[in-house]
This record gives sequence, C-alpha cells and structure tokens, in this order.
Amino acid sequence: MANSPTGESVLERVDRILAAFTAEDTRLTGGQIAALAGLPTATAHRLAQDMARQGWLERVEGGHYVVGTRLWELANRSSRELSLARTARPFMGDIHAVLRQHVQLGIVEGREVLLVERLSHPNAVAVRAAVAGRLPLHLSATGLVLLAHAPAPVQESYLAGPLSAVTEASPTDPQVLAADLERIRATGHAVQTGYLEPDTTGIAVPVRGRGEQVVAGLGVVTRAGDPAARAGAIVQALHTAAHGIRRTLREDAR
Amino acid sequence: MANSPTGESVLERVDRILAAFTAEDTRLTGGQIAALAGLPTATAHRLAQDMARQGWLERVEGGHYVVGTRLWELANRSSRELSLARTARPFMGDIHAVLRQHVQLGIVEGREVLLVERLSHPNAVAVRAAVAGRLPLHLSATGLVLLAHAPAPVQESYLAGPLSAVTEASPTDPQVLAADLERIRATGHAVQTGYLEPDTTGIAVPVRGRGEQVVAGLGVVTRAGDPAARAGAIVQALHTAAHGIRRTLREDAR
Repeated sequence: MANSPTGESVLERVDRILAAFTAEDTRLTGGQIAALAGLPTATAHRLAQDMARQGWLERVEGGHYVVGTRLWELANRSSRELSLARTARPFMGDIHAVLRQHVQLGIVEGREVLLVERLSHPNAVAVRAAVAGRLPLHLSATGLVLLAHAPAPVQESYLAGPLSAVTEASPTDPQVLAADLERIRATGHAVQTGYLEPDTTGIAVPVRGRGEQVVAGLGVVTRAGDPAARAGAIVQALHTAAHGIRRTLREDAR
Repeated sequence: MANSPTGESVLERVDRILAAFTAEDTRLTGGQIAALAGLPTATAHRLAQDMARQGWLERVEGGHYVVGTRLWELANRSSRELSLARTARPFMGDIHAVLRQHVQLGIVEGREVLLVERLSHPNAVAVRAAVAGRLPLHLSATGLVLLAHAPAPVQESYLAGPLSAVTEASPTDPQVLAADLERIRATGHAVQTGYLEPDTTGIAVPVRGRGEQVVAGLGVVTRAGDPAARAGAIVQALHTAAHGIRRTLREDAR
C-alpha cells in the first residue's frame, strides 16, 4: 500500500474523508472535506476526485460531494448489519405498534454502540442518534446491556478508560458503573434515566444469536416516569421481541 | 494516487475486492478474493490485510473475511439511499399489508436498477434480487419505469446497447422496448410478465421527488394472472404510496 509522506496509507486517508460525511453534513465541498479530514487541500481534492471516479463519492450541485451510491451498494449487499436489521425489523415493528415509542437495535463497535436499526414514532420523545449513529456504551441502555455482556477484558478496559458525561446523571464513577453492569446481568435488562438526555428513560435487553452469545442490544426510549416502564411492561415486550429475533436467526442458520 | 504496474489505482483494486462479496458469498478467503477480483494472490492478501486494519473487512473463523462494520457505518450514516428507503418504508408497508406481495424500491445505477429497499412476504412468489442487488433496467417493471423517465440520451444509449435475455419473454428488440417505454409514459405505470421469471408479473410506478424528476421506481412482484393486477388495484395502491413518499420528501425538505 502506497503511503503518504506522514506514513499514512491511501485507505486511512479515504476512511477519514468518508468519516467527514455525517447525518448532519451530507454535502461537503473539497475544502470542507480537507478541513474535516485534517488533510492538505490538494490531497483532499485529488483523493475526492479519485473517489468520485470510482463512484464512492458523487459530485452534486454547487461543487459539493455526497457519499456515492456505489459505496452504499458495496457496503450493504453482503452486510451482516443489514441482515441483522432486516431480521429484527418486524419484531421491532411489533414493539413499536404496541408501545408507540422509539425502538432501536445496536451492536458494539469499540467503546460505542452503533445503531443498526431504529423505528421512530412521531409523538415519541426526541432522541439523539440515528441509524449508523453512535453513542458511548455507558450512556445508553442499549449500550449498557451490550457492555454488561461483553467479555470481561473488554469491560475492565472500558471501566479503566475515561467515562464521559453529557448530563449530571451520566455515570462517571467506574465503581458505580460496575455495580450497574452487575445489576443488568442479574435482572436481564438495563434501565437508565437521564444519562443522555434529562427526562428520558432508556430500557434495553440483550439479543442472543444462534448460541448464547449476545449479538445485539434491543432498546426502547421513553419519557422518564412512563408508567409502562415502571410496571415492567416494556421489559416484557422487549424480551418477547428479542426471543423472536433469536428464533429467526436460528431458523435462518439452518 | 499510487498506481499498480497495470496502472490501476488502489481504490480500483479495493473496489474490486469489495465487489467480490455478494449476498450469496458473504465470507471469502484471501485466495477466493484474489480469484473473484482478478488480482494476483499476494496483492489480494496484502490489500485485504490493509482493509482489515481499517475495519473495511473483518477476519472471521476459518481464515475468511467479511465486509466490515466500519464500511457499513461510513456508507450509511449520510446515505441518500438509506434516507430514501426509510422515507418509503412505511408506505411500502401499507402496500405490503394490503396486497401481501413483495414490494420494492429501486433507483437507476448505470444500465441497472439498484434495489434500495424491499419488503417480502413469506407466501409471495420467489424473486431474484435482494436489497443492494441489481437487475437490468429492461427486465424488471421497476427498472422499466425508471428507464421510461430517464433523460432521452440515456434511453437512446440504453436501446443501442445489448439487451440481455433471461427468459423467452425478455424483450431484446430495441423497437419493441421503445414502444414499451412509450406506453409506460402514456399510462403512468409499467407491467411486465415473464421478462425475468416465468409466471411472474411485475408492476411499477414512478416516484417523483421534490420537483417533477423521477427519483425512484416503486414496484410489486406478483403471480402472473393475479386478479388484483388485472383489475388495476395494484397500480392504484402503488400510485397512492408513491404520492405519500413524495409528500414526505417534500415535507422533509422544508
């Protein structure tokens, strides 16, 4: 792989260019790409042109680039994430129809939960991340349930790292978080109120795959004090859906 | 961009490696990647390792690679395809609930229709392409409706190119196909029976965006001779859903 003068590979630089595009910034000029990717302007322009030739970026009006359809196709047609999301979607729809709140499915990516599917309800509370968005594991119920079932070294390393806070309720003490994870394993579900947004409660359960391993977290985001959350009704709905997803994953594996 | 001895860029070779992975072949060894991508084995191995370092591929059991979560995230988080699919999905669900057949949404990519969303019904007829799969424009109703509304030079170039056939009914005569496109524009919908699979009928309508331009094709795949298709009920359901998608795209643009 050809390296730049800084020893960075072409792939690393292309990755940084793609990472400059987000749900909020879907259209960028060459200059914006250079700034966001931390690359010299000439390098960013040349790479963006190469990527456009390949269909990984596309030129649109006003000299802007967008992420190209070709990349979407390459990333999705054999994707485990799309496959998991599609398996889960009908069961998420069942929860959504009954509870009328946001339902989301996430997997672990490093120290974060990556949301692979979400069903939103127009009247539900506002929430942060969209599909393909990320949240710190310890700040969302979906992330907490994944962290609680991660291999022990992953949990230890997570607890040893910096624990960011976005509200006053965000847990930043490793001992408090460790006790939280223990409780999640004991009860089989995670609940957090206000860790990410004030007045918002997240509730999540693990989704197991063909074996016993946890392959995803399935969560609902609702208003703090929602009577359905207090009564355990949301947890039961989530467990039922998680069971259905697992059954379908096992049937598909045959 | 550094070039190989054949003058091919790193991006071109990485694109070919990613293209080796499909819905059927989701796990490949380095040797299989080399064969499918038409690359020297050593080159394929080295590039696959570089891609794995970047998270674009991932190593799984048995020395296989799969397309990585990182690439899925980069391709989806600012994606117009995901955004269009998510806007269309509730309306596709309405059709699906009423008609109980496959419903699909496609966009033009070169000489093919790329399926960006599909809802399938377990009892519906078997069909070929999955999400992120492709079909030749002239062999599927969704593709035909897109071709009929493509700019004139695109249509002319398509008609001048080779028209592949997969069944005896597949149209291979440019004049017959041109008349088909004319009829699609006049009636506002496309119908094909047996072009792609015997005993299967596809019906599709255009989805317009914020302006008058056609941004997608919305189609249903059903059994040949389905009474709902004959009575025009499917076309009306598709037009209603296409209208809903357009309305939502316009509202979102405000």
